[in-house]
Amino acid sequence: MALSINCDMGEAFGLYVMGDDEAIIRHVTWANVACGFHASDPSVMHATVRLAAQRGVRVGAHPSLPDLQGFGRREMKIERGELTDCLIYQAGALKAFLDAERQPLHHLKPHGALYGMASRSADVADAICDVAALFGVPVLGLAGTEQEKQCARRGIPFVGEFYVDLDYDDDGRLVITRKHHAVDPQAAAKRALRALDEGVVRGTGGRDVPVRAESLCVHSDTPGALEVAKAVHAAVADRLA
Amino acid sequence: MALSINCDMGEAFGLYVMGDDEAIIRHVTWANVACGFHASDPSVMHATVRLAAQRGVRVGAHPSLPDLQGFGRREMKIERGELTDCLIYQAGALKAFLDAERQPLHHLKPHGALYGMASRSADVADAICDVAALFGVPVLGLAGTEQEKQCARRGIPFVGEFYVDLDYDDDGRLVITRKHHAVDPQAAAKRALRALDEGVVRGTGGRDVPVRAESLCVHSDTPGALEVAKAVHAAVADRLA
Amino acid sequence: MALSINCDMGEAFGLYVMGDDEAIIRHVTWANVACGFHASDPSVMHATVRLAAQRGVRVGAHPSLPDLQGFGRREMKIERGELTDCLIYQAGALKAFLDAERQPLHHLKPHGALYGMASRSADVADAICDVAALFGVPVLGLAGTEQEKQCARRGIPFVGEFYVDLDYDDDGRLVITRKHHAVDPQAAAKRALRALDEGVVRGTGGRDVPVRAESLCVHSDTPGALEVAKAVHAAVADRLA
Amino acid sequence: MALSINCDMGEAFGLYVMGDDEAIIRHVTWANVACGFHASDPSVMHATVRLAAQRGVRVGAHPSLPDLQGFGRREMKIERGELTDCLIYQAGALKAFLDAERQPLHHLKPHGALYGMASRSADVADAICDVAALFGVPVLGLAGTEQEKQCARRGIPFVGEFYVDLDYDDDGRLVITRKHHAVDPQAAAKRALRALDEGVVRGTGGRDVPVRAESLCVHSDTPGALEVAKAVHAAVADRLA
Repeated sequence: MALSINCDMGEAFGLYVMGDDEAIIRHVTWANVACGFHASDPSVMHATVRLAAQRGVRVGAHPSLPDLQGFGRREMKIERGELTDCLIYQAGALKAFLDAERQPLHHLKPHGALYGMASRSADVADAICDVAALFGVPVLGLAGTEQEKQCARRGIPFVGEFYVDLDYDDDGRLVITRKHHAVDPQAAAKRALRALDEGVVRGTGGRDVPVRAESLCVHSDTPGALEVAKAVHAAVADRLA
Repeated sequence: MALSINCDMGEAFGLYVMGDDEAIIRHVTWANVACGFHASDPSVMHATVRLAAQRGVRVGAHPSLPDLQGFGRREMKIERGELTDCLIYQAGALKAFLDAERQPLHHLKPHGALYGMASRSADVADAICDVAALFGVPVLGLAGTEQEKQCARRGIPFVGEFYVDLDYDDDGRLVITRKHHAVDPQAAAKRALRALDEGVVRGTGGRDVPVRAESLCVHSDTPGALEVAKAVHAAVADRLA
Repeated sequence: MALSINCDMGEAFGLYVMGDDEAIIRHVTWANVACGFHASDPSVMHATVRLAAQRGVRVGAHPSLPDLQGFGRREMKIERGELTDCLIYQAGALKAFLDAERQPLHHLKPHGALYGMASRSADVADAICDVAALFGVPVLGLAGTEQEKQCARRGIPFVGEFYVDLDYDDDGRLVITRKHHAVDPQAAAKRALRALDEGVVRGTGGRDVPVRAESLCVHSDTPGALEVAKAVHAAVADRLA
Repeated sequence: MALSINCDMGEAFGLYVMGDDEAIIRHVTWANVACGFHASDPSVMHATVRLAAQRGVRVGAHPSLPDLQGFGRREMKIERGELTDCLIYQAGALKAFLDAERQPLHHLKPHGALYGMASRSADVADAICDVAALFGVPVLGLAGTEQEKQCARRGIPFVGEFYVDLDYDDDGRLVITRKHHAVDPQAAAKRALRALDEGVVRGTGGRDVPVRAESLCVHSDTPGALEVAKAVHAAVADRLA
């Protein structure tokens, strides 16, 4: 599979704005679209799918735990069946907007706390596999995690992503912060190239740690996000599909 | 199209119960399944779709205005585009559970205040037509209303339903009450037969008014609902598909 | 403080019913009223406060994690400040209905998953103490837990409750089940008397374990709840305030 | 009562931002704080009340119809008792944060669609009066409307506000738009002075129409809101309490 640049999108809600989707979508190839449980609403979803269709950007579902007020960033103890049903609901709702715009659902990427839970818990990762299998799409996630392991076990395609604007510790784990902080666009582009060409990133402790970058993730709500996306896009443009 | 008996189902929410779906589904042929905006949640929707699949009952979407606390019974001023998107979202979510159980989406029936608004407003009725067209399904509604008119104009199949357990006034309009009151099962069955065979119902003022009954609607939350459904089902069993 | 019988109430939501508050309130002295985050809505809260005022029953706030669909039974990772603010919001909303009916707020009892978290986590228990201190009311909870410890440390009155209709294991811990199962009314009354007079309960493993019963908790949603409340009320009527 | 400058505040939600409260609060004397039904959440409410307390700004409740996704801008048909209970709930929740910060609740101003409904409907206006009476606070609204009339009838203090950044038509009615558009700060200040000193505003049709300005309302989400608030504040500073 060719390299892609992915970005979480459609995270506005009613009158509330989150990120500048119209600007940043020019520099990505895959959009992970929020489905109403941590952000977004039906009209935002439809508008985001339309925007992606106009720009030729592939749309994946970006479902979450049910936690609008917490933006999906608070872990919850939720039974596996309940979780699976929440994810089917969200992905199905998104797919209807894709049907309306004659676009396919392209991939599945869990959001926020759910993303973290899926990295560590076989059960959560497996629930996500159930939904990916139902819709016949690959899962986008962190390489080397429980999510990748469960996808491999079940024969579900997995795409490992590299975060150009987040830190990794010396064990290769993402350092998640509540609010994203600003990064230098050129430094982000160089990190991306190094991850692609050498398969490593410099960890927060100063050591190089191995990473796998089949897709590059940029954020739309980081300060300076647009410049980061532009720089990364320019640096890898010839490798994108 | 053969006669059907339809019933609103899947209106539980979390630990809250509404109606005895497992009992009543034995006496209906179409289930209108709530989609989470006035009632239901992802797990209730999945369970209801499974139940319908087991019983060979056809599943339609029963979407609502976004009003969980009001059970979709409060009218709202909502822009047409916003409304259409709310309905696409709900029907898409339901369709995903149908996909999971290898069942098709069969029809569309708006709920509560939205049902009433669609009877009177060309704009609301047309929004519902947009969603029916997108999913390729007929609309279930009241004959002689704006909803039927818009369906006719756009070439969308329309199924006129007769309420066996609600009153009609002498102008043939449904008398909607906040809570449904009890009806006699045999009287309901007779009303159904008369509507089918003679095309009339006795109005609240004592006059016979014309009705069209292509589907018979029974409620699951009326007191004695199960007995009503049984009696109506027995009376028309030989005419069902 | 004299003995009390407490019961969770006002857990209906819109058209959804939960428990028969009007019947059971005749057999209790304290009502723990839901505040809209796991159950209830403004109109249910007002009606429940009115009912309690008419029956001379004391009203406590029964706040929850923000989880309506899960009925507050799913644990969440929530920052302490965020949790405290959720609880202040809920208790304040309830207090306004009490003001309207010229009744005082009497106590505070966390609901569901939050109740369990407060039993084990000093931080959660302390957040609950903050809210009890703000409103100047005692906390109702399980004796011997982190909640009691934090109340003691901060000088906040604590009332230890005994569950007449739930099992305790041989370490004296409550056995929480998703749905409450039926209990024999007379057996419940006997358990209550034994807890009061001997300070012990027979654990699920067959051993007597020490308990402290300053308030007796009955449930309104247990099968046969009304008969249990009646029997317990009759058995201890002369000890109630 | 001395002149005041009021502004809707605390309309953020979770990670979503709305207006720059910290900047604009320096130029107002009354804050109308959202209560969680159209915007805000418990933590935003607490932070906004703290901010107001630090700046010596009076806090009023700014309750809404229950419509978070629509930001309270969609009219709903809601029964009077249900509406009153929604408002008591919201004002009570806000009052708890004021109690926590040792501040009084100062006034009541309905939000969005509810504000418009209260201008035209005696029933809605009267429901708002019920809540103002319960909390013992004045109502902030448009002079000459049903709201003022009902307040007068019931002896509830009413404060007429003038919108410095919205147009009035030649009948003296506010021209409400979905999104506020930019206004010139100096022009807004002049409009405010003219309303105060001459009791008129130039209507959209070119005629002067009478207005009453006991409080000046500035918006925090208008483009250039901060400059407008600054200019208005500077122009009337010597008349503020």
